This record gives sequence, structure tokens and C-alpha cells, in this order.
Amino acid sequence: MLRVEEACELLIHRAPPRRVERVPLEDALGLILAEDLRAPESLPPFPRSGMDGYAVRSEDTRLATRENPVVLPLAGVIPAGHPQEAELAPGTTVAIMTGGAVPPGADAVIRLEEVRVTPEGVRIFRHVPPMENVAPIGEDVKEGELLLEAGHQIRPQEINLLAALGILEVPVFARPRVGILSTGDELVAPHEAPGPGQIRNSNSPGVAALVRAAGGIPILLGVARDVTEVIAGTLRESSGCDLLLTTGGVSVGRFDVVREALAVMGAEQLFWRVSIKPGTPVCAAVLDGRLVIGLSGNPAAAITDFDLLVRPVLDHLLGRRRLGLRAAEGVLDQPVLKKAGITRYLRARAYNGPDGEIRLDTSMAQRAGVLSSMRFANAYAVIPAHAGPMPEGTRVRVLLQDDADVFVPQPRGDA
Amino acid sequence: MLRVEEACELLIHRAPPRRVERVPLEDALGLILAEDLRAPESLPPFPRSGMDGYAVRSEDTRLATRENPVVLPLAGVIPAGHPQEAELAPGTTVAIMTGGAVPPGADAVIRLEEVRVTPEGVRIFRHVPPMENVAPIGEDVKEGELLLEAGHQIRPQEINLLAALGILEVPVFARPRVGILSTGDELVAPHEAPGPGQIRNSNSPGVAALVRAAGGIPILLGVARDVTEVIAGTLRESSGCDLLLTTGGVSVGRFDVVREALAVMGAEQLFWRVSIKPGTPVCAAVLDGRLVIGLSGNPAAAITDFDLLVRPVLDHLLGRRRLGLRAAEGVLDQPVLKKAGITRYLRARAYNGPDGEIRLDTSMAQRAGVLSSMRFANAYAVIPAHAGPMPEGTRVRVLLQDDADVFVPQPRGDA
Repeated sequence: MLRVEEACELLIHRAPPRRVERVPLEDALGLILAEDLRAPESLPPFPRSGMDGYAVRSEDTRLATRENPVVLPLAGVIPAGHPQEAELAPGTTVAIMTGGAVPPGADAVIRLEEVRVTPEGVRIFRHVPPMENVAPIGEDVKEGELLLEAGHQIRPQEINLLAALGILEVPVFARPRVGILSTGDELVAPHEAPGPGQIRNSNSPGVAALVRAAGGIPILLGVARDVTEVIAGTLRESSGCDLLLTTGGVSVGRFDVVREALAVMGAEQLFWRVSIKPGTPVCAAVLDGRLVIGLSGNPAAAITDFDLLVRPVLDHLLGRRRLGLRAAEGVLDQPVLKKAGITRYLRARAYNGPDGEIRLDTSMAQRAGVLSSMRFANAYAVIPAHAGPMPEGTRVRVLLQDDADVFVPQPRGDA
Repeated sequence: MLRVEEACELLIHRAPPRRVERVPLEDALGLILAEDLRAPESLPPFPRSGMDGYAVRSEDTRLATRENPVVLPLAGVIPAGHPQEAELAPGTTVAIMTGGAVPPGADAVIRLEEVRVTPEGVRIFRHVPPMENVAPIGEDVKEGELLLEAGHQIRPQEINLLAALGILEVPVFARPRVGILSTGDELVAPHEAPGPGQIRNSNSPGVAALVRAAGGIPILLGVARDVTEVIAGTLRESSGCDLLLTTGGVSVGRFDVVREALAVMGAEQLFWRVSIKPGTPVCAAVLDGRLVIGLSGNPAAAITDFDLLVRPVLDHLLGRRRLGLRAAEGVLDQPVLKKAGITRYLRARAYNGPDGEIRLDTSMAQRAGVLSSMRFANAYAVIPAHAGPMPEGTRVRVLLQDDADVFVPQPRGDA
């Protein structure tokens, strides 16, 4: 059976091209730059005072000492935003505020705490070296400088920097639009009371939350009955999506309607069934250039399928470097008794043991039909196919969900 | 001078009470439950088939062997969502789909891959023990069970679980509404071209991004001139906010307008100036029961003030357990030569060294007026006040920004 790694490779190989979008700066937080950004101008754009104080010509203070202060007559006040265009006359000073433009002629600012203001002028008790408390033009950013490279994830500090330079639209990899269709005759909307044999469609909101948490935009396509034509019709109408996810209708029974619908529509099947327990009956196809991934209908299995197969595709489309969940090594707290022909992804609570290593508590219910035990899990313990019974303490691969608050010790001796 | 820890304590002590809100389930992702949630019903609500197969009475298969199979006439088909209310007649079977309701009388399901269907009926080659492939009522969740405790942060898997139980509104700690007011005569809107001595107001979008990244809702209050009455007027009108942030107007100069405005309005001052470099001139006050924090006007200093003082307040209001940035220990890559009377928060790029320890590269520009170097930083290296020159290799405290992709080694020998 296809392994997860092989399925992921296929999916990423056949994923639609990344869309580059110019988004308003305020919507760019967390997104990844698709192009290099260069500075269109210098920062600061004028010589700026870094302190509240007095702008001087440094040479006028050259001989100033505590005993023999220099007295410079006060020629004016420069608040921030109100520059003085006239040159500072030699032998004079002007009061200047933090952020104010140092006037032509002046080349230094002395902090107001250091001077004494008298009716004759401002008394200065030491030499103020050139450029003291003055940020020259371009100190922060020089015009033309490479600001941020393609591939950089935009953080708040960069929003501030880009706004300061007037860059108010940035080219980023667009959030993927992900259509979500639940299938199943047994489903009622979450706000409806299920009749006999019915259950609520919890996969639509659940998968939507997974998409949103991963950075995508979920587009709910509703619930389709277990009828090939109904499913095909809905998929056909979802042309605004970059990626389509279905849940249910992929089992071995006679209601394998999602694959049937895809076949009827002429979609190219990429795979069906992957070595994932729970979540084996997952399929993927390419329909009119768009990727369709049919997840298991079982909520716990659908979540596992998503984390293993869909998440890497979304990471790829968003331009992230790491595709999929963070992988590490962990130690089983409980033995694994059952041997399975396919790879098991046990729900696990990962935590750091006393030695710093990651411990994996897998004592919660593991049955595919049990969703509630996932509230205790923050990771998957990966049990390879055909791996014999494993005693407690066995080291296995672990995939950490984003909220897993554990540290990953690095193997010693890498130096 | 007040230390950061003391300032934080004051702020959290005087923060407004947490608001509890019932939000639609789809808006609850990432928020923290304010109350325990119990299950209003059981899951599954009926005995559910876990496989595509055939529902049987276990006792009818008791004597079945490979050599002497039992043949059970097929009495019908039960797709998911279409329950059969009639009891399964002894000695018969019905086809059932994954998720279908096991009919009264039947107590086990055998997978379709294991049987042979003949004109006489379904041949079964082994004993099917009671409850095989049947999820009893309440296997997943029992009515009345404690589902999620107050304090739990809601993740996608819980959205699915709550939707399955029809819980479509949840009580969470509301996202704080944070008013943001930039002050300064030198400021123009980011889309405007600055005139002589002017700069763009980058702090409004920058602080808004910090608020959003921390989980709050930024409310932009615009730019106020450096006039006490103008600032007071804007603050007075911002009654819809839980928290007010200003930038600028808090220095020692004659344009200390934010504190003046707060004084004029009768706000109770909590503090002014905290041992933070860059970002010392930060103030806090309580105005009509709301917290106002006046950040430095310098973008780099405003960001540092925010990370150290505002972030913990937002974490507190959101009900998070950890308040503020993740703290750890790191090793300086460069010496720190300057001794300062106040605590320095050096921009640092934290990364894991070959031994796994956190290394801190502080080689980027550290001047308060330089914002651009923050694009290289993902952490603050904390240099205590009055700490003498520190050689390269000194261990210091480090505060990690959320995007810092480092692991935090635990001290050995804790076991």
C-alpha cells in the first residue's frame, strides 16, 4: 500500500501552482513573501534627533568644560514635524525634540538633562562630538537596500518597517481557497436534531478549522447525499477553489461514491488507500487541474488524513519551508501490542520527560470511531507497518501538532 | 526605576476583568474556554457499524468454521442514514455500511471482505464475537460527561467534537479590543508622502499587527497632534476598547503630551519610565476603569515595550496560562561592552548551537532609532542593569518571540 511519504510527494508534485497575490500590508501578517522587497527610499529621510535636547555645531562646543562652559544663545525651537529650513547660525543653538529634523549647519544634539538654560543662552559643559544623538539620513534603511527576501514570513516588526517606507501592498503566496464537501446520507446539519440512524455533519466545521489553523481559507460546500451525480454536480460548481476536500464516501462498500463521482467526471486518480490507520481509505485525484483529496468520513480518521496529507500541501502552497507537522523522536509510555499491516498513527500526548526526551502517552482510546480522545492528544506516535509488539520505552517517530508545547532535544554529539 | 516584572504585575493587577463571550463555534478556534463543557447527549447516539459488512446475531455464527460455514439469508441492506427499525430475524443477516445503525437484535458486524455472498445467503466462516465492529451508544462520549475544562484552548479536533454534539456556541474569554492611537506632529498617514521633517505613521499598523498576532482585535484610533486636548478628546471617545495603547508623546521633553492628557482627564497614573532599553519612557494609567499604556514613539522601542508589557496583559485577558514571551537561557555570541543603568533588551537572533543550547547573535544594530534590524531578530537577550561588560559566551536570559523556531533544552539532572 502507498506510504504517506509517497502520497505526499504525489500530491505536492500535482498541486496547483502557487498563486502570488499583492495584498494590503495589514493582511500580510503571517504570509510569506513571493518576491524580494527593496527599499524605495531612505530611513530616516532627514538627519533626525534621537533625543530631546539642543542642536549645536559640534565645533562651537569644542572648548567647553565643566569649569568653563560655552553659552550658546537660543535661536529657536524645533518640534518634531516642524523643520527649520534656515541654517543654524554659528555660535547659536536651537531646542529640538526627539524625532525633529536637525537643521542645516548643526551636526550634534546634546540632551536637555545635560545643559543649563539661562537668560543669556544654553550653557554646555562639555564637547559634544559630531553626530552625537543624530541619526543621519539612511541610518536605518538605505534607498535601494534589500529589505526582505522572498520566502520571508511577515511578522509585526516587518509590518511596521514596510509601513515606514510607504510599502502598503506586498506580493505574497496567497492563502489557498479550500472547498470542503461532506458526503453521507446519514448527515444532518450541526444545528439540526439527528433522527434515527443520523448524525451531525461535524466534519465540515472540523475540517474548516483545520484549514483555517493551517493558513488556508475554508469554503464550505455543504453536504452531498450519497449519490454520484449530486457529488459530481457540487464538485463541478466549486471552480473558485484551489483545492477540494471531501469527507466520507471513500470506503470499500457499495457507497464508494466520491471515487465514482470523480471517475464519472473524468478526473485522473492519483491514489486510493494509503498506509494510514486510522484513515486508510483516502483518495486523491486531479480534476480540471485542481487537486481533490477524499478524506475518510470518520472524524478521527479525517483529522489524521488531513494532518498527514493535506497539511503538507497547504504548507507548500503557502510557501513554507517545512511541509507538514514537526517530526521528532519520542519514547512510548505504553507498550504497543497489536501488529498491523499498515502504519499506525496513534494519538499521543507528547510531553517532556525528566531527562528532557519526548515521552508519548498513548493511553487514550485509539479506535477510529472514537473522536473524543483526540482532545487529549497533541501528537501522533508512528508505529511502522509490520512492527512487532513494542515494549514500553520503545523509541518511535512522533509528529507534533502545532499546539504541542514540548521542546525537541537534539541528539547529542552532533558538534 | 521600576523593573519590567513589577510593571507587569501592576498592569495585570489593574487590568479590566476578563470578558466572557458566547461565540459561534467557528469563531472559537484558538480561544480559551471560560467554563467547563459537558456533553448534552451521547455519541454515537445509536449502535453504529464501524465497517462495511453484515450485521448478525453473534450466537448465529457460534459454530461457523472454515470447513463448515454458516449461511445466513440476506434480509436487507442498511445504508448509513437509513436505519432499519424492525428486529433482525434470528438466522438472517443484513448488509450494513460504515456508520449505519446496527438493527435491534443484531449485536455484531462482520467485514464484507471476510464473507462470501451466494444465492442462498451470506456464508460466514468463523464465529463473530458480540460487539465486533459495533460501537455501542456512548462509546465515544457519554451524556453528561465532562468534555472540556475551563482553561482549555480550542483546537480543530475540538471544533469537530463539539459540532458532533450540537454545541454550536461556546463560552470563551473574549478577544480584547485594543484601541491604538499614534501621537506626533511629525506623522503623516502611511499612504501620504512625508514633507520636510515628517515621517509616516508606521506605529499604527505595526502595533495593530502585534495586537492581532497576540490574539487581540486592533481598533485604529488614528493620529493625534501633539496637543493635550486633542489626545484627551480621542481617548475619551474610545469607550468601546478594553485597553488603550498610545505611541509617542511620552518622552522627557516639553511634548510629554500623553501623560499630560491623562492627567487632565483625571486618570490614575500607574507608572512612568520602566527599566527597559530601548523603550524607557513608557507610562501606564487607569482611565475610567480602562488600562492605558503609553508606548515609546520610536518604532523599535514601541515594539519592545509591547512585547514586554502589553503582551502579558493580552495573554492574561485571553485566559492563557503563560503570560508574555517564552523565557529561556541563551549564550551570547558577541561580548556586551557597554554597561547601562537600566536593563537592556538586545535584539537577538536565537538559534540552537551544536550542543543544543540556545545561541544569541546580537550583531545587528541595537540603536533605538533603528527599526530595520528587527527583521533579523526573533528574541531579546536580557542584559541586567549595571551588569559589567560581558564576554562572548556569557549565559543570559532570553525572551523568545512566537516565531522563534528554536528548541529550549531543559537543564539536565532535574530527574
